[in-house]
Amino acid sequence: MSETLFFVLELIGTIAFAASGAMVGLKKGMDIFGVAILGLCTAVGGGVIRDLVLGITPPVTFQDPVYALIAIATSIAVFLPAVRSRLERGSRLYDVVMLLMDSIGLGVFTVVGVQSAYSVSSSYSIFLLAFVGVITGVGGGVLRDVLAGDTPYIFVKHFYTCASLIGALLCSLAWMPLGSTAATLLGAAAVVALRLCAAYFRWNLPKASPSPGGARR
Amino acid sequence: MSETLFFVLELIGTIAFAASGAMVGLKKGMDIFGVAILGLCTAVGGGVIRDLVLGITPPVTFQDPVYALIAIATSIAVFLPAVRSRLERGSRLYDVVMLLMDSIGLGVFTVVGVQSAYSVSSSYSIFLLAFVGVITGVGGGVLRDVLAGDTPYIFVKHFYTCASLIGALLCSLAWMPLGSTAATLLGAAAVVALRLCAAYFRWNLPKASPSPGGARR
Amino acid sequence: MSETLFFVLELIGTIAFAASGAMVGLKKGMDIFGVAILGLCTAVGGGVIRDLVLGITPPVTFQDPVYALIAIATSIAVFLPAVRSRLERGSRLYDVVMLLMDSIGLGVFTVVGVQSAYSVSSSYSIFLLAFVGVITGVGGGVLRDVLAGDTPYIFVKHFYTCASLIGALLCSLAWMPLGSTAATLLGAAAVVALRLCAAYFRWNLPKASPSPGGARR
Repeated sequence: MSETLFFVLELIGTIAFAASGAMVGLKKGMDIFGVAILGLCTAVGGGVIRDLVLGITPPVTFQDPVYALIAIATSIAVFLPAVRSRLERGSRLYDVVMLLMDSIGLGVFTVVGVQSAYSVSSSYSIFLLAFVGVITGVGGGVLRDVLAGDTPYIFVKHFYTCASLIGALLCSLAWMPLGSTAATLLGAAAVVALRLCAAYFRWNLPKASPSPGGARR
Repeated sequence: MSETLFFVLELIGTIAFAASGAMVGLKKGMDIFGVAILGLCTAVGGGVIRDLVLGITPPVTFQDPVYALIAIATSIAVFLPAVRSRLERGSRLYDVVMLLMDSIGLGVFTVVGVQSAYSVSSSYSIFLLAFVGVITGVGGGVLRDVLAGDTPYIFVKHFYTCASLIGALLCSLAWMPLGSTAATLLGAAAVVALRLCAAYFRWNLPKASPSPGGARR
Repeated sequence: MSETLFFVLELIGTIAFAASGAMVGLKKGMDIFGVAILGLCTAVGGGVIRDLVLGITPPVTFQDPVYALIAIATSIAVFLPAVRSRLERGSRLYDVVMLLMDSIGLGVFTVVGVQSAYSVSSSYSIFLLAFVGVITGVGGGVLRDVLAGDTPYIFVKHFYTCASLIGALLCSLAWMPLGSTAATLLGAAAVVALRLCAAYFRWNLPKASPSPGGARR
């Protein structure tokens, strides 16, 4: 049962992150190949980094084509004229869909990362489990933003990494007492809820004003 | 015999990709160190990523200095006044040489990637072989473009990743029936031919117009 | 004794690189989260890449929280109003502190990289030892600059990679005759001294003028 849950979660995360990557590609005016490749990199990036960190080679994504194919299909769907024109017309709709897709991907991949680390060794510390969860959660989005030439979300979206970290810690801590299913759902829900709340209530943090010298380099 | 072939191919790819990296460095006005380092990263980047993905540690490039030394020598040659001034004067010549070097590097490293994956395990699926081939082929160029602050070729050059994918699939499929030598040459030739045709005939693909909101972030 | 030395060195490098990352974050006007994450990535990036290259999974940083916690604490300290305003006010002070922190981090992580490679196998060639040292030394800074959207130091700061390479070679060559402690201190001191001399005396190298076509892409 638990395996099915993780498979379904990973599919949901793959679709959500592929859509977010494809949407960034749309905004940058890429052609259908570019959009598909950016969607693919976003969807599988976090998992590949996770597997390299855990020593799982070749990474799971390379072994089973289903994730890559779903990511490509999702990206092409985002590129379809009907979807695209709707997203392009209303930049408000674009922002909302982007926020949702990115939050779901972040939540799902964070807990999938924790689960992967557990499956390699159950003696890993909470710290390692949470670290791997965060890397898996944010990895795809960082790759998307670096490849597209944007400042990564992890630096500019309030609470982005923090939401992932809290979810990863919750999931890791609840794993033994509550069981893997409850811990996973709890962790993923926490990430999505925190991220949406942060966006909705515009949680703000102290910020340094860019220094006059900031643009010199 | 087959080993000699792969060694020669890897040298050709190393020289071609080092030249492409060095030329990007020239265009960016880097000094001789910067040019050499960018040439080196471009030439060995794909192979390092491939080895990490396949679990070959330390990567082959780190074990045998010949590839790194050749990449550095090539980069310095591109920096020589005679070569440099000719490349700088005619931006048309620059474009043609860059296209050729990059295409040869892409073709060669794609099939070298497939061969590396085969050498680790002959039971890998066609999907995995092709995936590793593409990663090896495009990895160096992506690293070059990200480090130089450009949008990676894989998103903007028509058919770039597609050419690599078709060559990787051809090579993987022909490996058993035709033997490794024929499969390798066929795959590499297909990549170079497709890439040059795409550039010459300006194969176009549906493209989303950059949305007005695209520059906001 | 030698183990204590490496632990202390790694702490010094972590603090120095975390400070350099946090300062770049300050300059870019990031909030406290962004600054902490950039400091963390800069401080642990080189070590993570080193461990992946050497096949040490999960990377040491993931196993022992002390480095990550120190990096985050350092970044938050840089963000404190007292420190921040002083750094922001005088861009000359900023430049000097940044140069010092970055040089110390480069020197320390270069020799720590050589030591890590030695600890995996004492039969590695000088070439491999030096290569791993350089990757470890420059890795964190490259990650910092790519994530922050800057041109990596390795391409634009005179002598940056070269200083690391000379230090790594010195350390590798002196390891057997002088012992690990002397070799390490010698290598790290050489990197810092070379880097500071290069900055102070403005050592210059032949440079290609950016071609007129350089801005086209």
